[in-house]
Amino acid sequence: MRALDLVVAYESVTVDSDALDAARLLAEHRLPALLVLDESGEPRAILPASQMIEILVPGYVVEDPTLAAVVDEQHADRLCEALADRRVGDCFPADAGPPPVADAHDTALEVAALMARVRSPLVAVSATDKGGGRRLLGAITASHLLAELLRGRTSAGGSSG
Amino acid sequence: MRALDLVVAYESVTVDSDALDAARLLAEHRLPALLVLDESGEPRAILPASQMIEILVPGYVVEDPTLAAVVDEQHADRLCEALADRRVGDCFPADAGPPPVADAHDTALEVAALMARVRSPLVAVSATDKGGGRRLLGAITASHLLAELLRGRTSAGGSSG
Repeated sequence: MRALDLVVAYESVTVDSDALDAARLLAEHRLPALLVLDESGEPRAILPASQMIEILVPGYVVEDPTLAAVVDEQHADRLCEALADRRVGDCFPADAGPPPVADAHDTALEVAALMARVRSPLVAVSATDKGGGRRLLGAITASHLLAELLRGRTSAGGSSG
Repeated sequence: MRALDLVVAYESVTVDSDALDAARLLAEHRLPALLVLDESGEPRAILPASQMIEILVPGYVVEDPTLAAVVDEQHADRLCEALADRRVGDCFPADAGPPPVADAHDTALEVAALMARVRSPLVAVSATDKGGGRRLLGAITASHLLAELLRGRTSAGGSSG
């Protein structure tokens, strides 16, 4: 079983995408995260939905929980202005590293080792195309990979213990 | 809008649940994480699927990526033995803190502030029952909360910018 057999399409945006559009994409599809690509289409970052929440909530409310309780709903409605005129590239720290990227021919165990090494819930998968460039195929999530590793166990007859 | 209106059922296990069963639950439902409850039903931890991957992959394979490529599939099938006879409580560090827990009556902004403060993708929600005990209602994910905060914006007429 290779990464190529496990990879699935994964919602992505670019560093230049509108931040509010990205937040809507996360919200509408109830995604835990988006894959962010740089200008050349290479994986640049993973943008978790919780990061967008951090941007939306004013710092003084995060610091003082009692304030959050007294902000009225009309004011809360204006929170999303924090995302207006902002690019996705402005929504994660500049020193955030790129997500782990597996090659299409990597084995399930190589993908799992990569995921464990960088403690990522998601591994991007790319392949080398005929021109020698890298082409993004999608991603493999931890739960998807877990399903594959457990499937292996079932087919082995469950002889453990 | 209160936590009570936003909370949804979320798959949970207890610290004494079988670790392999928990891994199967994550895999079958393609969940990014499970909520782990202690013996008294209080939220004890969040168990991400990526944590289970970390347990499955032998340390020597994580340390040396070239080894992952040469381990044959039959050997990989035996990885899941790492979970046999293990409890869920053995699958996260003993010093891992409990997940954030919101009260059913907290506002969406209070939940968002809590999520931002502890940088969690998930907030558990509980209510006080008639006997004075706490009862877990479920959880609110970051993307679900984002949907609620953006919905607020839409109803405000999108007057920003």
